[in-house]
Amino acid sequence: MQGVLAEVTRGGRVESFHIGRAVVTDGRGEVVWSCGDVVSPVFPRSTVKALLALPLVESGAAARLGLTDAELALACASHGGEPLHAETASNMLERVGRDVDCLECGTHWPTYTEAAYDLAARHARPSALHNNCSGKHAGLICLACDQGIDPQGYVQPFHPVQRQVTEALEILTGAPHTADYRGVDGCSMPTYAIPLKALARGFARFGSGEGLSGGQNDAARQLREAVAAKPFMVAGSGRFDTRLMNHFGTRVFCKMGAEGMMVASVPQLGLGIAIKTDDGANRAAEVALAALLQRFGHAIWSDSDRILLEELAQQPLRNWNGIDVGAVRAAKELT
Amino acid sequence: MQGVLAEVTRGGRVESFHIGRAVVTDGRGEVVWSCGDVVSPVFPRSTVKALLALPLVESGAAARLGLTDAELALACASHGGEPLHAETASNMLERVGRDVDCLECGTHWPTYTEAAYDLAARHARPSALHNNCSGKHAGLICLACDQGIDPQGYVQPFHPVQRQVTEALEILTGAPHTADYRGVDGCSMPTYAIPLKALARGFARFGSGEGLSGGQNDAARQLREAVAAKPFMVAGSGRFDTRLMNHFGTRVFCKMGAEGMMVASVPQLGLGIAIKTDDGANRAAEVALAALLQRFGHAIWSDSDRILLEELAQQPLRNWNGIDVGAVRAAKELT
Repeated sequence: MQGVLAEVTRGGRVESFHIGRAVVTDGRGEVVWSCGDVVSPVFPRSTVKALLALPLVESGAAARLGLTDAELALACASHGGEPLHAETASNMLERVGRDVDCLECGTHWPTYTEAAYDLAARHARPSALHNNCSGKHAGLICLACDQGIDPQGYVQPFHPVQRQVTEALEILTGAPHTADYRGVDGCSMPTYAIPLKALARGFARFGSGEGLSGGQNDAARQLREAVAAKPFMVAGSGRFDTRLMNHFGTRVFCKMGAEGMMVASVPQLGLGIAIKTDDGANRAAEVALAALLQRFGHAIWSDSDRILLEELAQQPLRNWNGIDVGAVRAAKELT
Repeated sequence: MQGVLAEVTRGGRVESFHIGRAVVTDGRGEVVWSCGDVVSPVFPRSTVKALLALPLVESGAAARLGLTDAELALACASHGGEPLHAETASNMLERVGRDVDCLECGTHWPTYTEAAYDLAARHARPSALHNNCSGKHAGLICLACDQGIDPQGYVQPFHPVQRQVTEALEILTGAPHTADYRGVDGCSMPTYAIPLKALARGFARFGSGEGLSGGQNDAARQLREAVAAKPFMVAGSGRFDTRLMNHFGTRVFCKMGAEGMMVASVPQLGLGIAIKTDDGANRAAEVALAALLQRFGHAIWSDSDRILLEELAQQPLRNWNGIDVGAVRAAKELT
C-alpha cells in the first residue's frame, strides 16, 4: 500500500481519501524523502512539457523565431483554452508560416468553462488552438520548421522532433524512453512510463542545472524565467499552477499532469518533487505538493510564502449555495 | 486496505487504479458478498434520492397532484440539466403554484456540457432548475405544499418534510440518521453517513419490498416503474444510469451519487448493491457495478443483458483524436 496523500472531508468526517506516491530528490537522483513505490514506471503525462520544450530553446530555434516569454510558457502549458491561450498558440504557428490546420492534438472545448461558454455565446466552435496542449504542439511545429523539417506527423514517436525531445527526457530523467514504456497521450503524443524518482530527478536538474550541459542549463533557465514571468500562460484562471507560480516566481516551478501527476522544482534547494495519486485525482496531487513544498522549503520561505502554501494545502469545499461543507486537505503524514 | 474496484489502463499498463468497498445484501441485511470495510459510515449522497421520494408517493401527494412518470423519475434524479429536465422540474413546481424561486438547491451550469453550451449560445444563464438535484427539491416542495406546509426551509434538517424523508431512510436502511452522522450535501440538503451494508439493505428492500409496509412497497414499486419508464429523466444523455436502465427496465434500478457512490436493486433476486470508491471516483463505481450485476445476476440475464454489462464493465478510453489509448475496467476480483 502507498501512503495517504490527501483527505476530503464533509460534516467533520473523512468522506474520501487519496493514496499515492511522492518523492523528493536532488539532481543526482538521491532520494531525500519518499512515500510509497517510487520505482515502478508511471506515465508522467503533461508534467514533462517543460522538458519537451528544452530542444526548442537549446537549438536556438526560439531565439531565431523571436518567441516571447508568453509563447515559451505556453509551450510548457496545459492551458484552459482562454482567448489569450488560443491567440498565443496561433501567433506561435504564424511565426513559421503555419496555422491551426498543422496541429495534430485534436480539438476539445476549453477546460476553463467560462471560456467555453463565451465561445458558445459567440456561436463559435472550439478549434485545436483551444486544446490544452496546443502550445506544446505549436512549439514542436516551430522546432521542426526552424530546422527545415516537415512538421507533418510530429506526434509520431520516430518523427525527428520527437527524437530530439525524447533525448532531452532521457538526459534529464536518466530513464529509458523506449517502445516498451510507451503509451499514447490525450493529445496523441507519446508518453513514456518512468520511475517517479527519475521524474523528480529530472525536475531537480531542470531547476538547478545539475548534470546538464551549459546549453541545456541555459535553456532550462530561460524556460523557468518565461513561466515565472507569464504563469497565466502555463495553466490559466483559477488554476493551482498559475496561483503558485504567480506568487513564487522563479523560486518554484510546478506542473500538473493528467491522472493525478504533479512535479516541482525548487532551484535554491536543488530539489525536485514528483507526485502520482494512484487513482488519478489531481485535487489530491495539488494539496500534497503544497504540503511538501511547505515541509522541504520551510527554511527558505517567507511568512507570505507559508500562508499561501497553507491555503493551497487545505482548500475549502463550498456547495452551490456557497456553504462550507468540508475541505480537500493534504494528509498529516506529508506535513 | 480495501479491495481494488477498477483499473485504468494506458499503453498496456495500469496507469491508475481505484480502491474501495462494495457489498451485496438481501432485504434482511444479510451480506451475500462484500469487499473492504462495509460497516464504517459513508455519505450516500445522491444514491438515496429514490428513497427520499417515497413519502411523496406513499402520502398520496403524487397521485393527488397528478405527477407523471417523468416527474417522479426526476424526483429520483441527478440529471444533466438538459432542457427536458429543467422543463419537467418547472412543471412539478407549477403543480403546486410555485416556481424556480422556491428552489433552495443553488444554481450551476448543466453538467451535460452540450446543454450548457446551448444555454450559453442563447445568451441565457442557468437557473436552479438546471441544478442536477432540482427534481428532488421540486418533489419535496410538492410534498410540503400538498400537506399545507410552508416549503420554505425544506432543506433544513428539522423541516417537516425532512423529518418524513429521514424516517423513510431509517426504515429502509435500518441505520440511525442523527445529527452525529450529518453532513451538508452539494444542494444544501442533509446527507447522513451510514454503513455501506445498510445502504445495500435499503436498496434490496426498495427493489423487493421486503420488510416494508404495503403502502411503502406500493410507493417503491411506483417509483421503480416510473424510473424504468423514463430513464432519461434520472440522469440524461450518455449517462451510465440511463444507459443501464434503458436496457434493463424494471429489472434493475441503479443510482449514482457524488464521491464515487453507486447503488442498485435487482428485484427478482431480492438483492441490493452498494459501492463506494475511497477516492470518490465515479468512473470506478460504474464499471464495478456492471461487473457485480454480471456476477450476481448471471443466472437471470439474457445474452443481450450480458453483452451490455460487459461493455459497461470495460469502457474504452479514447483521446481527442478518437484513438483508443486504454480503458477503464472493473477489477478481475469483482468478476
